[in-house]
Amino acid sequence: MTAPSFPVLRLKPKADARRIRHGHPWAWSDDLVLDRRSKAVTAGALALLEDAERQPIGIGIATVNARIGLRVLDRAPDAVIDRDWLRAKISAAHALRAALYDKPFYRLIHAEGDGLPGLIVDRFGDTLVMQPNAIWLEERLDDLSALLLEITGATTLIKNGTSRARALEELPEEMLTLAGTAPDGPLEVPMTGAIYMADVLGGQKTGLFYDQRPNHALIASLSGGARVLDVFTHVGGFALAALAAGATSALAVDASEPALALAGQGAQAMGCADRFTTRQGDAFAVMEALAAEGATFDVVIADPPAFAPSKQALDKGLRAYERVARLAASLVAEGGTLMLCSCSHAADLTKFRASCLRGIGRAGREPRLIYTGFAGPDHPVHPSLSDTGYLKALAFRL
Amino acid sequence: MTAPSFPVLRLKPKADARRIRHGHPWAWSDDLVLDRRSKAVTAGALALLEDAERQPIGIGIATVNARIGLRVLDRAPDAVIDRDWLRAKISAAHALRAALYDKPFYRLIHAEGDGLPGLIVDRFGDTLVMQPNAIWLEERLDDLSALLLEITGATTLIKNGTSRARALEELPEEMLTLAGTAPDGPLEVPMTGAIYMADVLGGQKTGLFYDQRPNHALIASLSGGARVLDVFTHVGGFALAALAAGATSALAVDASEPALALAGQGAQAMGCADRFTTRQGDAFAVMEALAAEGATFDVVIADPPAFAPSKQALDKGLRAYERVARLAASLVAEGGTLMLCSCSHAADLTKFRASCLRGIGRAGREPRLIYTGFAGPDHPVHPSLSDTGYLKALAFRL
Repeated sequence: MTAPSFPVLRLKPKADARRIRHGHPWAWSDDLVLDRRSKAVTAGALALLEDAERQPIGIGIATVNARIGLRVLDRAPDAVIDRDWLRAKISAAHALRAALYDKPFYRLIHAEGDGLPGLIVDRFGDTLVMQPNAIWLEERLDDLSALLLEITGATTLIKNGTSRARALEELPEEMLTLAGTAPDGPLEVPMTGAIYMADVLGGQKTGLFYDQRPNHALIASLSGGARVLDVFTHVGGFALAALAAGATSALAVDASEPALALAGQGAQAMGCADRFTTRQGDAFAVMEALAAEGATFDVVIADPPAFAPSKQALDKGLRAYERVARLAASLVAEGGTLMLCSCSHAADLTKFRASCLRGIGRAGREPRLIYTGFAGPDHPVHPSLSDTGYLKALAFRL
Repeated sequence: MTAPSFPVLRLKPKADARRIRHGHPWAWSDDLVLDRRSKAVTAGALALLEDAERQPIGIGIATVNARIGLRVLDRAPDAVIDRDWLRAKISAAHALRAALYDKPFYRLIHAEGDGLPGLIVDRFGDTLVMQPNAIWLEERLDDLSALLLEITGATTLIKNGTSRARALEELPEEMLTLAGTAPDGPLEVPMTGAIYMADVLGGQKTGLFYDQRPNHALIASLSGGARVLDVFTHVGGFALAALAAGATSALAVDASEPALALAGQGAQAMGCADRFTTRQGDAFAVMEALAAEGATFDVVIADPPAFAPSKQALDKGLRAYERVARLAASLVAEGGTLMLCSCSHAADLTKFRASCLRGIGRAGREPRLIYTGFAGPDHPVHPSLSDTGYLKALAFRL
């Protein structure tokens, strides 16, 4: 089979071609020669990247109007991105998860971390939920679908096309069942001893995030006989893991009524609904109310949404993390544990930790850091992008 | 009881007293007024720290001839460092470990991280091994010993006074049994499903390090059915955890014959000596020999001694880590896992990771980072010192 000829994108003479040759998977659009022809390359389509001397660097996905102008897919300029190519990537991703986990509940494909930029696939037993957030993936959807089902042995495949990333490539917003039968209710997901309810058709609001698994485990190890408060609980993440590990009580707080309802169903399925309570509302307001009531807990977790999603939002975001830390610390009993999480790309570990420490100090507490955690190993990271790891979890003994 | 009057150490006017008031536990000796009187304060004795305006900051341990001139023990200037004070610290430390672990095998006291600078205590079931590496601890040894036994319920207490840190305070090198009966052979230590043999009287060479526990667990989760190579194995750390998790074989490499003998006894006690082999020798030479033999493994771990123990040794140390990474990566089968560890203070996470990636790249492999780990939660860290966390473990999928 002859390699198809792709449109060519060329680096400017001043661009650092070595950086990409030595492993970095992205070319910045500022580093690309942008003439009429290159600007016409469809966002999300494949292109051949060349250096300024017209030597090929590799094949990638072009998005010349975005900050990242090209994502390298394969460093062989004659690579054919066909079914066999996809099979190798998906098989390697599956082999890692199959080795890691006894049960088929995990993130199966983590985009660039599995060599498949733009593709996210989560596995819930026999059901796969795929997010193809790029044109090159849409163009290969039949192959992708067939391979995902064949390699995993799953029977149902749902396409969740609701990510905002799709709009950038003018892909439609849609939710489709590509194989099997869409579940008619939430799916039961066993993890860290708990049972979570995932409404996989409801989108991000009520789906499930696998990334906190190792951090759940740390909290579980400290929750035997403990009174636990889980702020920003979503569908019960930390609270249910704590109950499974023998917490005497867990109070789960979230702004979303549907998420709390799923958390409650999880507690019911685990047979520990009697130890589980919820409060719906703004997390800051609920924490202030609990403090006013004089409530304390042995273990407190706060896993807020990304307060610093961009560099512009960083200062404001760090102040919000400090405020969460102060309020949450004030609810921890003497000798108790506080876990604070951030899923903000812009707030790196050092900055996030400093905000947490300021907040804890303002609450008048003296912390010891007992744990620094990240997303689990089913969320591999391209090593050149390892500083962009978004999820951080810190546990303190107060 | 009236507070005893301590010698006074005073900060220079230019010193940043706020840094310490706001939580940092150390005063640099460069920041102290060093006159004849302050220079005469015994290394390791208690002193009162004052700011330049003679306002008290707290009580600490003076070591004016070292870079760290004083370590804050208590921020109350009238604190009495007596049996009750010690009891509160030891009880809090014990409560954390008792919550974390089912079995009494852990680091019980981690110096500054547990508010007890200079003191290390490891627990091996009914046996405690204490390292009191400061005069203020030696002066309170009877109280410390009684409290450790009372709070833990342990029956044997060994004093390991062989640390080099003791020489700085002119404390004798000694190994004493302070309570109970010294074990007449290695102790069996259950951890991560494995059984380790710890020669607690043999000192560091053949003792046991608890700090790798979470990193052992990550390797165990990937070792089912795997051929495992553990370089710098010490008493079998990663190799035995992998065998417990179902590795088909484990080859353990170390320069120390006594350490390898203990690893073999551990494999024997676990009933899997048939899957365990050792090679004694220089790790670099053994890895080169294995590569020459064409050997490959599904999981390779390299946990070398501190190659960069000081800032002066940093460049050389980073080159050594790169070399380890290159040699180890070349022994990993396609789709296998490589874990690289560093216990060097001077090599921070970013520098160490960069060295690993250079080495892996030089071996011609394309890695994905699946895990970043640190010492376990029985090694708490004072938050102002969290950047000094020494142990880093990175796992890559190749």
